[in-house]
Amino acid sequence: MPHMHTLRPVYLDEEHFATGPSVAILDQTQLPHTHITLYLTELNLIYEAIKSLRVRGAPAIGIAAALGIYVHMKHTAPANIDAFISAFESARAYLASSRPTAVNLTWALNRMAGTIKDHASTTVPNILLALRETALAILNEDTNVCRSIGEHGAQLLKPGMGILTHCNAGTLAASQYGTALAPIYIAHERGMSLRVYADETRPLLQGARLTAYELRMAGVDTTLICDNMAADVMQKGLVDIVFVGCDRVAANGDTANKIGTLGVAILAKNFNIPCYVCVPFSTIDTQTITGADIEIEQRNPREVTQMWYEKDMAPKNVKVYNPAFDVTPAAYITGYITENGVLKPPF
Amino acid sequence: MPHMHTLRPVYLDEEHFATGPSVAILDQTQLPHTHITLYLTELNLIYEAIKSLRVRGAPAIGIAAALGIYVHMKHTAPANIDAFISAFESARAYLASSRPTAVNLTWALNRMAGTIKDHASTTVPNILLALRETALAILNEDTNVCRSIGEHGAQLLKPGMGILTHCNAGTLAASQYGTALAPIYIAHERGMSLRVYADETRPLLQGARLTAYELRMAGVDTTLICDNMAADVMQKGLVDIVFVGCDRVAANGDTANKIGTLGVAILAKNFNIPCYVCVPFSTIDTQTITGADIEIEQRNPREVTQMWYEKDMAPKNVKVYNPAFDVTPAAYITGYITENGVLKPPF
Repeated sequence: MPHMHTLRPVYLDEEHFATGPSVAILDQTQLPHTHITLYLTELNLIYEAIKSLRVRGAPAIGIAAALGIYVHMKHTAPANIDAFISAFESARAYLASSRPTAVNLTWALNRMAGTIKDHASTTVPNILLALRETALAILNEDTNVCRSIGEHGAQLLKPGMGILTHCNAGTLAASQYGTALAPIYIAHERGMSLRVYADETRPLLQGARLTAYELRMAGVDTTLICDNMAADVMQKGLVDIVFVGCDRVAANGDTANKIGTLGVAILAKNFNIPCYVCVPFSTIDTQTITGADIEIEQRNPREVTQMWYEKDMAPKNVKVYNPAFDVTPAAYITGYITENGVLKPPF
Repeated sequence: MPHMHTLRPVYLDEEHFATGPSVAILDQTQLPHTHITLYLTELNLIYEAIKSLRVRGAPAIGIAAALGIYVHMKHTAPANIDAFISAFESARAYLASSRPTAVNLTWALNRMAGTIKDHASTTVPNILLALRETALAILNEDTNVCRSIGEHGAQLLKPGMGILTHCNAGTLAASQYGTALAPIYIAHERGMSLRVYADETRPLLQGARLTAYELRMAGVDTTLICDNMAADVMQKGLVDIVFVGCDRVAANGDTANKIGTLGVAILAKNFNIPCYVCVPFSTIDTQTITGADIEIEQRNPREVTQMWYEKDMAPKNVKVYNPAFDVTPAAYITGYITENGVLKPPF
């Protein structure tokens, strides 16, 4: 499984700088052709890396935020505990605003806040040790959770099956196996032959740049298609199952995921193809009652009108609608593959 | 209606060259930013212009082929009638192979062949005059047909409606009004306020480059979306009706159109939004029994993996599926707006 050894989207680096730890982020805006690892210590740059999708994918964003706030506090820590807590709170609010739809971001930052609360009666060095431990736990738990999702999902696969996926919910979206691609990696490890159709996923082409890239690196038979070809490959009988990740699942099962997921789910239902959401429990937000309560981030129109902000592909000043996510009603989702098995709402 | 005066996708030019007529083609691969009109006289270049989508859209391809074969024969005409007919036949077969799915191409070339047959007992100069007349008739009839399609389609529109369209079946795809955009232009001429959502239409972005361009030029309220956002705008209640063009309609109503049309039609049905195919009668191919009999052209993978063949957007040598069209079963189509009114199959 070469992909697991060579691709590390986000981790804690304690060697690159003599002055202290950094968050190492593989800059995904440069893939598939340029591999640049960023070693970040400044809060502004960590915020920017999340906002600009240098690190993306619900689990990876949570890991980056947890590691990031630890690294930031480690480098800037006020000696006084009250000042420390106040600085942490302001850093937390700032990082949480980078991607409003991603529940893992808030979840990870809240967990870091809980660690501070648990250690508020100790010393700043002790709090820093505890923050480091929690951030690493978030990373390691993600690896285990994704492997469990993969184990449960792999039971739905049979040799020769065609799998359609949208956006990237693989290694590059998490710490190792990913979510939607985890069942594929587990089945592939066991020698099962599968065919994957990867939606390119406009506007930022995570499917073309990331999913096609990491699946090929792992030796999985992968065909890249434009988003608007999904109906055609389904109609031709080439797709047996759909796996997607998600950014937030509401208590009733409504699922916010990369724009285009709603269309894929409706098409799958139309062709009687099962459609599963692969989701760590931490991404299920029982505080959100239905999909209507999920805030959807609108992104820069230039993502649509220009290729990498370089070359115009549309008339100047054309009006653009560019939501980052859509909400798929639970009725279109066959099941939710979690670390605890395949579930149905209510959770 | 500024769009009607300034945009002429394909016409017969008899002034550019002193040596004889040429086919004037607005090179649509360069839009929306660069306006280059090509004046073509060589058969190879006319073939290339159709093949490379410099001129595209079912009606416009038919017009280009008819004008093109006339111009070619005018410049190269053998004095002997038998040699003339033989040269025409070989040019006809060659041009017909440029876009195998487009029924208008064959239809227009067959009509030119019919003209030759009708005049085979006269002289080569007389045949050339008749070919010129037929080619111009094909162009002028298209303008009238599209206006009629627009009149019939406009009756389905009410003020404030949201219309979703895919690819480009507008002025740039025909001689003047286009097909799918004709109802919008007619209603807009009459002062009706409408909102249009234009799918960008990967891989070649005809929606972003051409539809958004010509609608804006005509002053129509237009919002550009990625193909995978169509489900989202429908779910939000922003779309009241879908208009698409087509490259070929089979006798049972199955419709080949730009890849992605099938998905749009399925989504529309899911949301109870009427979906109409706007189609000149010449595009209905009663010789083709069902959609299964329509040959679908596969195009170069580089259309998907590279932006304008310049910059890679996917891993090197990734496997790509890139059909030019898909086939929408008649069951997903509410009706067929023709120059003779709104029809249902069988035709």
